[in-house]
Amino acid sequence: MPDPIITLTTDFGEDSPYVAALKGVVLGINRQARLLDLSHQIPPQDLRHAAFFLLTAIPYFPPEALHVIVVDPGVGMERALLYVEIDGHRLLVPDNGCWTELPGRPTVRRLEEPRYWRQPVSATFHGRDILAPVAGHLSLGLDPAQLGPLVTDWVRLPGRPVDLAKDALRGEVIFVDHYGNLITNIPGNAFRTLAGGSGRVTVEGQVVPRRVRTYGEATPGSLVALVGSSERLEIAVAQGSAARQLGVGVGGRVEVVAEAS
Amino acid sequence: MPDPIITLTTDFGEDSPYVAALKGVVLGINRQARLLDLSHQIPPQDLRHAAFFLLTAIPYFPPEALHVIVVDPGVGMERALLYVEIDGHRLLVPDNGCWTELPGRPTVRRLEEPRYWRQPVSATFHGRDILAPVAGHLSLGLDPAQLGPLVTDWVRLPGRPVDLAKDALRGEVIFVDHYGNLITNIPGNAFRTLAGGSGRVTVEGQVVPRRVRTYGEATPGSLVALVGSSERLEIAVAQGSAARQLGVGVGGRVEVVAEAS
Amino acid sequence: MPDPIITLTTDFGEDSPYVAALKGVVLGINRQARLLDLSHQIPPQDLRHAAFFLLTAIPYFPPEALHVIVVDPGVGMERALLYVEIDGHRLLVPDNGCWTELPGRPTVRRLEEPRYWRQPVSATFHGRDILAPVAGHLSLGLDPAQLGPLVTDWVRLPGRPVDLAKDALRGEVIFVDHYGNLITNIPGNAFRTLAGGSGRVTVEGQVVPRRVRTYGEATPGSLVALVGSSERLEIAVAQGSAARQLGVGVGGRVEVVAEAS
Repeated sequence: MPDPIITLTTDFGEDSPYVAALKGVVLGINRQARLLDLSHQIPPQDLRHAAFFLLTAIPYFPPEALHVIVVDPGVGMERALLYVEIDGHRLLVPDNGCWTELPGRPTVRRLEEPRYWRQPVSATFHGRDILAPVAGHLSLGLDPAQLGPLVTDWVRLPGRPVDLAKDALRGEVIFVDHYGNLITNIPGNAFRTLAGGSGRVTVEGQVVPRRVRTYGEATPGSLVALVGSSERLEIAVAQGSAARQLGVGVGGRVEVVAEAS
Repeated sequence: MPDPIITLTTDFGEDSPYVAALKGVVLGINRQARLLDLSHQIPPQDLRHAAFFLLTAIPYFPPEALHVIVVDPGVGMERALLYVEIDGHRLLVPDNGCWTELPGRPTVRRLEEPRYWRQPVSATFHGRDILAPVAGHLSLGLDPAQLGPLVTDWVRLPGRPVDLAKDALRGEVIFVDHYGNLITNIPGNAFRTLAGGSGRVTVEGQVVPRRVRTYGEATPGSLVALVGSSERLEIAVAQGSAARQLGVGVGGRVEVVAEAS
Repeated sequence: MPDPIITLTTDFGEDSPYVAALKGVVLGINRQARLLDLSHQIPPQDLRHAAFFLLTAIPYFPPEALHVIVVDPGVGMERALLYVEIDGHRLLVPDNGCWTELPGRPTVRRLEEPRYWRQPVSATFHGRDILAPVAGHLSLGLDPAQLGPLVTDWVRLPGRPVDLAKDALRGEVIFVDHYGNLITNIPGNAFRTLAGGSGRVTVEGQVVPRRVRTYGEATPGSLVALVGSSERLEIAVAQGSAARQLGVGVGGRVEVVAEAS
């Protein structure tokens, strides 16, 4: 049987010892666990960033992987910790909504069985004291039913407003990637349908003059619109940063209007 | 037998090829070694940062892991390289004191056997040329006694001053984490005893108005004192950065004074 | 048989989900692949940085490792994707020249067999849709001949000018590492021969007053020349950043002139 895969996604950064502590705790329980870093650079407590990250990363993994997510502004408060199965993927995650955009119908348990936790549980680091040890035990074959009861209610992140009318698409920037590309919540298909041949794209009122299929089609430094690899409308500067050039970040309003033909 | 675990902690960053070279050298000797990144974001040559990092990370690991630490301002000079066993943990580390706060009674060897090194040994990268190959050989089962003689003297980092009197605790910020939380050298227990109900906390003369059990109890943006996950007094700004808000870093003076009751 | 090693080198950063997607795709094809991060901090689209990185990292790896490199400013355009064998190392890499400084005589195939790709292939993320799945299949034992035809022509990065005369060496800074050390294209041997006892070193006209064997020989903060761990002339500030102190980066002119004896 192959070694179990456990992935880690946190907002801990790597200058602090918190990621290392998680890894140590998992391996202390299951020496054979195969740990995989997804990211420790989620901006601190940024649940929306985490939500987009998970939505764009988790679906590529094989179903038996176990994903530990620790972006946890509510640590130590009443918020629950959850074990989630969704579309074959398995997650351990605080109940803060960062996972709820994943496609599929979830089965959710609330972690309530302290027998699988480190003791004493600190008030500020449930990743180390609850999620990591539970991941270790699950990877040894523990039946998830032992973790706690099924629940049918959990926190959901409110969606970003998007309006897909026939002659105009109105949405927002929902993610700024490492290159400074602005990823919107306007689906690639809606954009293609409306703006197949034309369509005027603006970001916070600034016109995006050109539409391309891929970055390399544009003159370096020029501003373009394209359907990106997550099948969403994306605003980019070829070999540059659209976020910096436009001074726009998450929440920036994006509009696509059909041109009179 | 499970594959041997070798962890890496360095100040190399990941934009340079030095981490990759370490990994290649270990795997060139033991193809089965399971490499684990703890951090490559220790600030350059910052031994105190490394010391806190190791103290807060290593104890969580299972004893058979081998920890390679390369923060090495004295590379190529007279400083020794050490193999350390302490409380069941095994370390390969320059003799600069960054490991000496780990609890336990250490057994220490000085690396003197060039047969287990890469040749020629460069003057500036002993991590690649000595520590990584020695880690590879140890992971294959080499008896540590082959590495060099036992030694009883090694460098220790001078401690940060802390004064735990009955009516006042005086210490320092010893670590600033990724969130900007200020972690002090005042033990959680001393703080709880003195300031159980009251106690006035100041950082560089600035009053910390509130004490909480966990970050979420505070209004976002407000300044609080708490006992953090490493069981030390910590100054934090809920969903913000205390380091930035107070303009305080490592070495900042922290005081807890009993309030007249 | 040991698990196959697949290394990842990208300019994706870790705040975005792109690295995680690569890992998921590989593991979705070969659950046993052992993934190893070399770096995700190559500066965006910086092929020269990638070239130096690979040159200084890949040769340390055992030959059976498979290296996936995704620094790809030409994604979606006419540029090819290549499978390269060179000096026993195996690479999957866009045809942009970042690998061509590796020593050895390469065997190169152009990836043309869509059967081993994810479908549909996006226009902007061939790392996820072509390189990662091909890596997964190769790690399962796929014969590279199945990937596409041998080719004899590929992109080469133009070399940085270097002039090694008898009484003067003229080169450039080709890499700035994490510490701010300036690494030049002047070979250590040429420098030792010309400047064995003396030799005047300048960087962009600024004199480097001292030559040392290793950083620790210099007073902290002082500017020195040395032969670094990649056997090249290097300009450093002991426990500081030469890049910052001199205001010099990649492309900075470096000169070594024999002193009248």
